[in-house]
Amino acid sequence: MTTRSLLILPGDGIGPEVMAEVRKIIDWFGTQGLAFEVSEDLVGGAAYDAHGTPLHDDTMAKAQEVDAVLLGAVGGPKYDALDFSVKPERGLLRLRKEMDLYANLRPAQCFDALADFSSLKKDVVAGLDIMIVRELTSGVYFGEPRGIHKEGNERVGINTQRYTESEIARVARSAFELAHKRAGKVCSMEKANVMESGILWRDVVQEVHDAEYPDVELSHMYADAGAMQLTRWPKQFDVIVTDNLFGDLLSDLAAMLTGSLGMLPSASLGAPMANGRPKALYEPVHGSAPDIAGQGKANPIACILSFAMALRYSFDLGAEADKLEKAVEAVLADGLRTADLLGEEGTTPVSTAEMGDAIVAKL
Amino acid sequence: MTTRSLLILPGDGIGPEVMAEVRKIIDWFGTQGLAFEVSEDLVGGAAYDAHGTPLHDDTMAKAQEVDAVLLGAVGGPKYDALDFSVKPERGLLRLRKEMDLYANLRPAQCFDALADFSSLKKDVVAGLDIMIVRELTSGVYFGEPRGIHKEGNERVGINTQRYTESEIARVARSAFELAHKRAGKVCSMEKANVMESGILWRDVVQEVHDAEYPDVELSHMYADAGAMQLTRWPKQFDVIVTDNLFGDLLSDLAAMLTGSLGMLPSASLGAPMANGRPKALYEPVHGSAPDIAGQGKANPIACILSFAMALRYSFDLGAEADKLEKAVEAVLADGLRTADLLGEEGTTPVSTAEMGDAIVAKL
Ligand SMILES: CC(C)[C@H](C(=O)O)[C@@H](O)C(=O)O
Ligand SMILES: CC(C)[C@H](C(=O)O)[C@@H](O)C(=O)O
Repeated sequence: MTTRSLLILPGDGIGPEVMAEVRKIIDWFGTQGLAFEVSEDLVGGAAYDAHGTPLHDDTMAKAQEVDAVLLGAVGGPKYDALDFSVKPERGLLRLRKEMDLYANLRPAQCFDALADFSSLKKDVVAGLDIMIVRELTSGVYFGEPRGIHKEGNERVGINTQRYTESEIARVARSAFELAHKRAGKVCSMEKANVMESGILWRDVVQEVHDAEYPDVELSHMYADAGAMQLTRWPKQFDVIVTDNLFGDLLSDLAAMLTGSLGMLPSASLGAPMANGRPKALYEPVHGSAPDIAGQGKANPIACILSFAMALRYSFDLGAEADKLEKAVEAVLADGLRTADLLGEEGTTPVSTAEMGDAIVAKL
Repeated sequence: MTTRSLLILPGDGIGPEVMAEVRKIIDWFGTQGLAFEVSEDLVGGAAYDAHGTPLHDDTMAKAQEVDAVLLGAVGGPKYDALDFSVKPERGLLRLRKEMDLYANLRPAQCFDALADFSSLKKDVVAGLDIMIVRELTSGVYFGEPRGIHKEGNERVGINTQRYTESEIARVARSAFELAHKRAGKVCSMEKANVMESGILWRDVVQEVHDAEYPDVELSHMYADAGAMQLTRWPKQFDVIVTDNLFGDLLSDLAAMLTGSLGMLPSASLGAPMANGRPKALYEPVHGSAPDIAGQGKANPIACILSFAMALRYSFDLGAEADKLEKAVEAVLADGLRTADLLGEEGTTPVSTAEMGDAIVAKL
């Protein structure tokens, strides 16, 4: 029998409550003969409260062993004053780095039923379906030297943007592979006009393209122009590949275009393990939303769709992922809406748990 | 008699043709007893073609002597293959750095008559009026070490984000001063959750606020959340202050929200000179648009409004700046539109030169 192991890290804020709904989905697949071995542990502020660190070494070790990690969200005002080294975010960044999850896949998809929630005009976003591939283990997030030191009377803050050729090449391959399964277009974004690391980025992406994926339509854009074009006419894009920091901003921008952050999943993938499955972590794009935590207001769909991505990318269960995604679309078509998506006429407000139940019922 | 000296650098692409319209405005002020000493020179690709460098030392020296520099735009596909060190952009970056123009003021204003051109819903952008203050002389644009080198078999690209306390403090002061003249709110953006230079940024902005501008309402936001919030509900902002690289992306994003790039000016200001005027360079936010250069299609308004900013910030001619801005609004109200703003019923298409003439006529 194939085993499928999952480590669930609910984290902080609304993390635990959206993850509770994912457990219902996992349980349902269990009743269908698709069992998952599930373990659960702490990350972020929750881990800090228990262990004084946002990620315990034992949790890190477990994450390295399972087929996939499912993460809720980390952070909250309670932890704002903590030292940089033990902030909730460090737990997440350590997982990304030590699991070497270099390709962060962030789909920005506009669900027809929800296009009105966008701040953009309906024709600009209806049917939007782009995939941002963000490099996740290098760049200014991890480059050395870094820190704050004194020079004379002054403090000086330093970070280092650093990319090697192989780091760029491997994430470029991820983007080209995705383009093969989509509309066949990749746009790479950097600031090659002001940063040498951007020149190397552009050159390596072009070289990988020419040598291995000449059939994909590749273009290059400066990241500032990219932000503009995403705002002006996002449907011009299919796959966008960019570095860790630009990807952070541009993927959040792209997510907000859709108007429904509570719907958007993400996958962070690394190299294949011995069993052929990639190292993988799945998490919703939204944050921990401490202001609404514990009130049944959170939308569990982003986290549920993150599990759908796990089915597809970690367990090769594409049909099951489709089925889950269809169930989500069906409850939306029925007019069920969590608190983040209220306001349309003819829709029915539901709680976090009711939304989870409704999706299970559709399955 | 007070002298007012201007160095005009039309640059590349549509730069010369929009600048020709600014000259008409300058000449008109001359007929009203407000004379400017104008000299003109080359920058960007035009300077490279003439001298093999995107900014001749003599031009740099002149820029240091005048009261204000007016720049059109730089760059074009013709120069794409040039070495990094002589690309058109280096001319602009050298001006910014050597004149020490640390505060880049980028207003994102939505003109009522043009709100329909935005990709955002009308209620989201109508009446929008935000000011982005971008640090312009430091950060990853200028930090050392930088470059591409070999490590073993691999190329590695490096750039350095570096900020000193005084660099942050002075641009923060610019933002707080502007807030005093506006709605009294500043939002500072960085990635203090992942970058130590962002922690220093946040701390210094807060310290300057507490010590010198406690009456301004200061908030802090991560730059990725900032990109989201600018897209979701930009009117929540008054003044935004941020670093060079985040400012590059966020100010372009904010500009695109308005839907009419051809309308947006910018000012880059440094320390006061001996005569009390700040070192200053004014330029439109739009680029050189080589695809439409020389066709009479370019909108000269962004460049004309950049001259209005020069009147206000360099020459203390606020009333004259208002007058010029009102003339621009009046021609728009009359329905005159350059090629970038066509499409509305009841408007009259005009060429670049006709737009300039119409504004002079209104004056
Ligand atoms: C929480 C934070 C460290 C993180 C990042 O900056 O990568 C988040 O913004 C994200 O995009 O996943
Ligand atoms: C032309 C380029 C070097 C420049 C920059 O990156 O600063 C431009 O994008 C800008 O924003 O003025």
